[in-house]
Amino acid sequence: MNSNIAASIRTQRLASLIPMLSKMIPEHAILSEPEQLKAYECDAFTTMRQMPLLTVLPDTIEQVQHVMRCCHALDIPVVARGAGTGLTAGAMPVENGVLLGMSKFNKIHAIDLHNRTAWIDPGVRNQAVSDAVAPYNLYFAPDPSSQLACSVGGNVAENAGGVHCLKYGLTVHNILELEIVSIEGERMTLGGPALDAAGYDLMAIMTGSEGLLGIVVGIRVKLLAKPASARVLLAAFSTIEDAGNAIAKIIGAGIIPAGLEMIDQTGIQAIEALMHAGYPVHAAAVIICELDGSVEEVEDELSSVIAILNSLNASDIQVSTNETESKRIWAARKAAFPALASLAPDNYVMDGTIPRRALAEVWTKINRLSDEYQLLVVNVFHAGDGNMHPSILFDSSDENQYQRANELATRILELCIQVGGTISGEHGIGLEKINQMCLQFSDAEINQFHALKHAFDEKRLLNPGKQIPTLARCAEFNAMHIHRGEMPFPHLERF
Amino acid sequence: MNSNIAASIRTQRLASLIPMLSKMIPEHAILSEPEQLKAYECDAFTTMRQMPLLTVLPDTIEQVQHVMRCCHALDIPVVARGAGTGLTAGAMPVENGVLLGMSKFNKIHAIDLHNRTAWIDPGVRNQAVSDAVAPYNLYFAPDPSSQLACSVGGNVAENAGGVHCLKYGLTVHNILELEIVSIEGERMTLGGPALDAAGYDLMAIMTGSEGLLGIVVGIRVKLLAKPASARVLLAAFSTIEDAGNAIAKIIGAGIIPAGLEMIDQTGIQAIEALMHAGYPVHAAAVIICELDGSVEEVEDELSSVIAILNSLNASDIQVSTNETESKRIWAARKAAFPALASLAPDNYVMDGTIPRRALAEVWTKINRLSDEYQLLVVNVFHAGDGNMHPSILFDSSDENQYQRANELATRILELCIQVGGTISGEHGIGLEKINQMCLQFSDAEINQFHALKHAFDEKRLLNPGKQIPTLARCAEFNAMHIHRGEMPFPHLERF
Repeated sequence: MNSNIAASIRTQRLASLIPMLSKMIPEHAILSEPEQLKAYECDAFTTMRQMPLLTVLPDTIEQVQHVMRCCHALDIPVVARGAGTGLTAGAMPVENGVLLGMSKFNKIHAIDLHNRTAWIDPGVRNQAVSDAVAPYNLYFAPDPSSQLACSVGGNVAENAGGVHCLKYGLTVHNILELEIVSIEGERMTLGGPALDAAGYDLMAIMTGSEGLLGIVVGIRVKLLAKPASARVLLAAFSTIEDAGNAIAKIIGAGIIPAGLEMIDQTGIQAIEALMHAGYPVHAAAVIICELDGSVEEVEDELSSVIAILNSLNASDIQVSTNETESKRIWAARKAAFPALASLAPDNYVMDGTIPRRALAEVWTKINRLSDEYQLLVVNVFHAGDGNMHPSILFDSSDENQYQRANELATRILELCIQVGGTISGEHGIGLEKINQMCLQFSDAEINQFHALKHAFDEKRLLNPGKQIPTLARCAEFNAMHIHRGEMPFPHLERF
Repeated sequence: MNSNIAASIRTQRLASLIPMLSKMIPEHAILSEPEQLKAYECDAFTTMRQMPLLTVLPDTIEQVQHVMRCCHALDIPVVARGAGTGLTAGAMPVENGVLLGMSKFNKIHAIDLHNRTAWIDPGVRNQAVSDAVAPYNLYFAPDPSSQLACSVGGNVAENAGGVHCLKYGLTVHNILELEIVSIEGERMTLGGPALDAAGYDLMAIMTGSEGLLGIVVGIRVKLLAKPASARVLLAAFSTIEDAGNAIAKIIGAGIIPAGLEMIDQTGIQAIEALMHAGYPVHAAAVIICELDGSVEEVEDELSSVIAILNSLNASDIQVSTNETESKRIWAARKAAFPALASLAPDNYVMDGTIPRRALAEVWTKINRLSDEYQLLVVNVFHAGDGNMHPSILFDSSDENQYQRANELATRILELCIQVGGTISGEHGIGLEKINQMCLQFSDAEINQFHALKHAFDEKRLLNPGKQIPTLARCAEFNAMHIHRGEMPFPHLERF
């Protein structure tokens, strides 16, 4: 937007909004100074930034309702933010819009041991839920790598997963009920304490909607019993194909590991340099496999898995014998992204999902793209469910590298669609992948998304411009694709 | 509607619709004779009936698109029907509307062993899926009592459960992708082959939407590996409280049985008279508990469960030692509703869900209501997940009994809401429970449901009048409640 027009809108909006907000929001909870707002200009997708008009930090549901009513009345956009650990710019402010920080909603209100649920605020950290219920031998299953910092409200917004979602599902599978505030300021309860709820499944539609449909102000999470036994196994392979086949055979044997991961050589070496976890640095790939359940079940599955690994020439097989050893193996895996910081100034962590059968094929193609663009790509896969996180390493201060990294990212996402996968596994779409939505979905499907958005937010004030592209944007993006001489997937009729 | 007006609309619609349909639908697939239409006037909720204008039986997706385009152009309502086994009148025709029978969509198109999925038509019977994949030691988890007859498309429409949904989830948890045709005749793909899909979760919203949002024409179901071992245990109790406590203690011990059921004495006796399955006829209640997993895991859990049962004075504990014995116990349970036919001409099978902690309380209150209304109520619970199916036995030829049965049903559903439960477990809302939606949801929530419906079906042609009540209907229903001198739940602020 022209900066003079933007500045004039800013002045007008501040003049009308601040007095209105102040009727119910204390002064200290309304941030308007640039140095205060700076902290809110991006989430963990740091290459895109935008200062908000204001940041509001409510601490009651009534205050959230008031903020929404003010913004609705004045046609001012609202972007909600949890802990700001998102990786797709979903919580990046909108120009001249309000940033609604939910960090003060940080209480665990009730733990219901009988029904194995807890009612919590959206700003509660993911790990804090498991910590609070640990004395009862329970835990909250979703475990994104950011679980020490990320909020459960953010997990709901992005439908977050983690290394254990193969067996225990995504956030949507681990919550039962949401309380939300609509853009009109109405409180609503979606879902309910039972397995099924009457009416349309609004809880599922809210989960993963990236702040475009409503503001989550309360969450009933499911709690799971900690398994009696959990053992983690690490194995090295001298070829990617053998590692891929091991994944396929383990799943094919009817075993559903609690986690099943695959890391390539560059990843292994970077992790080992940082964490000294005993990862085999000369392997082409390692897989990490966690088995959990009763002691007997785990032993039984462990011997099946080891037999499979041996049949595929695995080496350096390590099996944890206690929780400390298990934690060591996982802590190193979860440090994969920090570890890559030693290799390049910037790391573009991607998130796509492919059918398991395409693992080795996609891995090989990514390596070829890496050569083509002359940028190092490190492959870290949640291989069990086909969710991959290739990391493109680059230096953003070099404009040419920055451009190449972005183009390479687009090619990798296209590759995911091409093999029948999807452009998102657990990080959401946000702004990062909005163009690729045009490749994944037909016009009719995108129209249906917009109609649904309209049903919740007629004025398009909630996190506008994210997640669902306009058809005009798609027309432009697809034209550009054809313009550069490559029909995206000429050999595929329909994915 | 005034019958003259209805007849005149009928004549007009037939005159415009039949020639238009015939451009693409063969003559034999358009039924218009009363004797042909009679078979479609109700689903398994037989107390409500309505003849359709026409029944159309398409056998290609293109034909479904054509039917939708014709009805959309002419503003004629459409009700989709699978196998007609629904229990809430969800597939009952609308006056002067088209009944779209999906029975010819009965093929299993592809079984993907690598990804453990199958792509099937909506008219495929639930049991047929498991039969087709049995050679690979796989099965489809949802198992409603009607599974021999009901279609998977119907399971999607109602988000069906079954005795195993405690551990394996409802239909929504066991499908990955839907192909649908919208009321405008557009084909759309919802969800995808991976665990997560980009965009809003339209697959979840379609599941359980009772035909109000679109017509399902293809389903990607998840297939599960058959557990290595499954044992079924039957135990008798001399009081309902002990049986309820046993349920609570089993779940409290961290065991998630594959199924956990509870049946009262009248139910036991009726089942035993029909099935001779060895159920203990003098018990106040029995529970049935299935444990599955690896051999070791099952043995381990079995001893824990038996210890719990012994601590609560259970008697007549039977444990199956092979599949035949397991099937005998389950077959008898699944015959509960047919068995009740010996006790009364009519059986109003209800479906509500309550928090597990309220099991004994609700059971006792239902018995009191049974005395008050002088009608026998048989209690069959999916106790593990709190889903209960009280059966009201009555004679519909006696107008007074019929009235009492309906009033009693309403009171039982209100009781579910009162203890924090919901008016539906797995049968849906349809027409049967549409008034109770007014008690369960606030006006804002019902408005949100309507807005969502509008996003899929602006003209309200898909299964109109079902599932989501108008606010006018709610105002009337709630006024009637107050009129009879009972505010529904005066002591509860909010459920």
